[in-house]
Amino acid sequence: MAANDKTQIILKDSISAELDIDPLTRKHLLRLDEPDLADNRGDVDRLRYALAKKYGLLSVPLDIMNKVSRACREGNWEVTATVGVRQNGYAMIDIHPGDTTSKHLGLAIDIGTTTVVGYLVDMLSGNILDIAADYNGQISYGEDILTRIYTTGEGEGLTLLRSAVLETLNGIIRKLSGSGGFAQRDITAAAIGANSTMIHLLLGLDPSRICLAPYISVVNSPGILTAREVGLDVNPLAPVYCLPGVGSYVGGDVLGGVLVSNMYKSGELALLVDIGTNGEIVMGNSEWLVACAGAAGPALEGGVVKSGMRAEPGAVSEVKIDPDTYSVTYRTIGDITPVGICGSGLVDCLAELFLSGIIDRAGKFKGGVDRFVIVSAGESASGEDIVVTQVDINNLMRTKGAVNAALELLLESVGCGLGELEKFYAAGAFGQYLHLESSITIGLYPDLPRGKMIRLGNSSGEGARQVLLSSDKRRDIESIAKNITYFELNANQTFMNKFVGSKFLPHTNMDYFPTVKARLASRGMLK
Amino acid sequence: MAANDKTQIILKDSISAELDIDPLTRKHLLRLDEPDLADNRGDVDRLRYALAKKYGLLSVPLDIMNKVSRACREGNWEVTATVGVRQNGYAMIDIHPGDTTSKHLGLAIDIGTTTVVGYLVDMLSGNILDIAADYNGQISYGEDILTRIYTTGEGEGLTLLRSAVLETLNGIIRKLSGSGGFAQRDITAAAIGANSTMIHLLLGLDPSRICLAPYISVVNSPGILTAREVGLDVNPLAPVYCLPGVGSYVGGDVLGGVLVSNMYKSGELALLVDIGTNGEIVMGNSEWLVACAGAAGPALEGGVVKSGMRAEPGAVSEVKIDPDTYSVTYRTIGDITPVGICGSGLVDCLAELFLSGIIDRAGKFKGGVDRFVIVSAGESASGEDIVVTQVDINNLMRTKGAVNAALELLLESVGCGLGELEKFYAAGAFGQYLHLESSITIGLYPDLPRGKMIRLGNSSGEGARQVLLSSDKRRDIESIAKNITYFELNANQTFMNKFVGSKFLPHTNMDYFPTVKARLASRGMLK
Repeated sequence: MAANDKTQIILKDSISAELDIDPLTRKHLLRLDEPDLADNRGDVDRLRYALAKKYGLLSVPLDIMNKVSRACREGNWEVTATVGVRQNGYAMIDIHPGDTTSKHLGLAIDIGTTTVVGYLVDMLSGNILDIAADYNGQISYGEDILTRIYTTGEGEGLTLLRSAVLETLNGIIRKLSGSGGFAQRDITAAAIGANSTMIHLLLGLDPSRICLAPYISVVNSPGILTAREVGLDVNPLAPVYCLPGVGSYVGGDVLGGVLVSNMYKSGELALLVDIGTNGEIVMGNSEWLVACAGAAGPALEGGVVKSGMRAEPGAVSEVKIDPDTYSVTYRTIGDITPVGICGSGLVDCLAELFLSGIIDRAGKFKGGVDRFVIVSAGESASGEDIVVTQVDINNLMRTKGAVNAALELLLESVGCGLGELEKFYAAGAFGQYLHLESSITIGLYPDLPRGKMIRLGNSSGEGARQVLLSSDKRRDIESIAKNITYFELNANQTFMNKFVGSKFLPHTNMDYFPTVKARLASRGMLK
Repeated sequence: MAANDKTQIILKDSISAELDIDPLTRKHLLRLDEPDLADNRGDVDRLRYALAKKYGLLSVPLDIMNKVSRACREGNWEVTATVGVRQNGYAMIDIHPGDTTSKHLGLAIDIGTTTVVGYLVDMLSGNILDIAADYNGQISYGEDILTRIYTTGEGEGLTLLRSAVLETLNGIIRKLSGSGGFAQRDITAAAIGANSTMIHLLLGLDPSRICLAPYISVVNSPGILTAREVGLDVNPLAPVYCLPGVGSYVGGDVLGGVLVSNMYKSGELALLVDIGTNGEIVMGNSEWLVACAGAAGPALEGGVVKSGMRAEPGAVSEVKIDPDTYSVTYRTIGDITPVGICGSGLVDCLAELFLSGIIDRAGKFKGGVDRFVIVSAGESASGEDIVVTQVDINNLMRTKGAVNAALELLLESVGCGLGELEKFYAAGAFGQYLHLESSITIGLYPDLPRGKMIRLGNSSGEGARQVLLSSDKRRDIESIAKNITYFELNANQTFMNKFVGSKFLPHTNMDYFPTVKARLASRGMLK
């Protein structure tokens, strides 16, 4: 994805997202009785009473008490009060003279390890008005999550990482405010989807125990915080809600996918695979949900792959290899001279290398080579070959193997077979870009009837938008987080055994992948 | 009162103050399940669930989330959590490893125009552990309230006045912490009694409309704020509750008296007179309450009276004048060489000057003099006469007249006579020190059977202690504030007429003051 690509859509396939709009903040136009000698209530008290029927006696932060007095007089006792949700009850967030109800802004945020996206949301219609994105400023402290966690252990590391992502976020907010022509404090609510580590780093929480058994977060459900606490440069009293997670490796970004898919409301057995830094999977229906993370480390991130880059202009994002000539056809994002290869290109490569017989079922290059040239030096922007190496493949095989192992373990633990899956949802930072057929070919996604397979797009961002707008959705995701059964696989021996045994393309048991098997057979590649 | 006099008692006459102790914060000793691979709840989530039965899912401010993790591990999953009241619901205020429930501190504060007092309260027993007091640092910006209000209109005036009283308060907190050997953040709750202007200046609220018709406060019931918002150097998350007022001139200090007197719970018709900067009066019983302020300006404050001083060592606090010889007997606070005269001394003077026939019923010196020497230059510390002047008397007559006029107006408006009053409560900064007989003689207090007359001591401070400790008392005072009928007398013509007509000693209608009348008769002073 180009970081500034505003044409990006938040939901790829059409998941219906009809919401009862009941956002984190609401605006109320009030016509107050003018005070006189016989009605000498204080300005704040007068306002509280005017809202008491709906909210009881809400909290009015000291910050805005003087502003209440000014607004009442400037507006000649007609004011617009913004009221927001707190962890318990409600608080006044802002007040303006006159009627400002027609403009009511919120912010949905997706903090990825690599990319941070802010969606400016019209909280009246629920529509996305604008999008701004940028690289996560933490990248300079480490491309992958583990490096960042280690960095927090050194001196002021946690403070630096926190500041870095806040700078990114506040830059995005400035950008939205600048192009939208509104004041940053007009954004009166925010919701954030991110994995557990990103949430810890954003909130300045010590993430060190996330990667130490028994892998305990400081918090999974932060609840409603304020923008001032968090450090977001929007209205300082704005409620900020972080999508809850269920464990150190199944965070709010994944549960955002569960929320957006509506799988928790349906009787159909569904599987959700979230390919981000790791592969997380959630399975279940309206009766039960189980989740786990195939924590095998990053395979698709730009900095990890030899010729890797982020999904931005110049990234090879689609690859075909002619099985007879081994000649490569590719596409780059923006159709420009290729610079490197991004996640979806890499998955395509692995699938094509396998289908062309260049690598074997174990993912090893045949014939003693250790790399394959996708774009030759002469055609590439850098003047160097763009390649896929054995190490790149091994990393990807590990992720795929972890997802396979985790899925098998979940299926066994609930006594279901793959064939019983009625829906499949592809979620996560990479999930929105990977090509379905290639992902199935390498066994990263299960081989189900294609009509049952749905891509959720940026479900972390969309989940954030939904909880920003809907109290039902906030209740739902808290209930999902509370009731989901989490399997910690980090120290699970069964998982390790399955993991070791699952590093074949597409799977040790080819019968799990009937369409891939048929394709290989049609190419005469099955013995 | 000597500012540092720790022997001061908070309640003068014995008002029973039995409270159901349910303070603004509570400590809970928790023994948590240790997390493991099968129970991977986050530390904060674990704590929230442990408290959920009592509090629901309470708010855990970001500030202390890391501390939750540390305390759980340091205490080997035995921790003491401090939970506090918010405007809606509850929040975690602090957490410590192990069992710290035996020490639980709160602070009751009385902010007077002149003196600020802090009471360190044991929130387990309700007892006062220590007292510290100091002059209100705002005095350098003006002795009286109106000067301070005007000061806020100039440049950074409001900021300066706010900082001044915060410096005083935080000095008091440092003093208490230093002598008590505890950390300031161990104070986890505070309650404040003060008049409306003092509350505005403490909270940085614009007080300008307090002295402009229709005399509207920014807020009468601030509700629960936090120490961080207010600027108190105690635990920054501590709930801070200000006693609510009902109007610009009947503030939380006065309602504190109503609360402490229990007059709002009794069927007996009671009158409360609060002599502070002005004279405020409240009348009523469990069925109804009416209140008003006889806003006649300061009469008793040190800086207003020619030889005036605050009630500290060296202040003439008791005066007798021999009606035959006009020779003066006096006492000073601390029994030392006299420095000046304080409020109770001034009231004694006026009573004695009247009873001795030195002034007439209109409060005018007879025989063309304009002052009376209480202490001659040779006996005084300064080497100058300590005197009571006609101007001093005029000021005091005005206050007395305002109280009389307000009382009459209230009595008329509810259709009661003075004789129907069954209880009288003397409250307020000066009320705790004035001598009852002298106050009656000059007509400042009504002439009721002495057994019905009760001095409340520092009822503003005691009111603060009670709401610090009791949710019932908080509900009670909010209900008092909501239901009391307030008469704004500042622009009331009936009041002005009565006021003008009430400047006689003890009253225009001598029959209202039978014991004073009898005394005058016994001295042959009635025609």
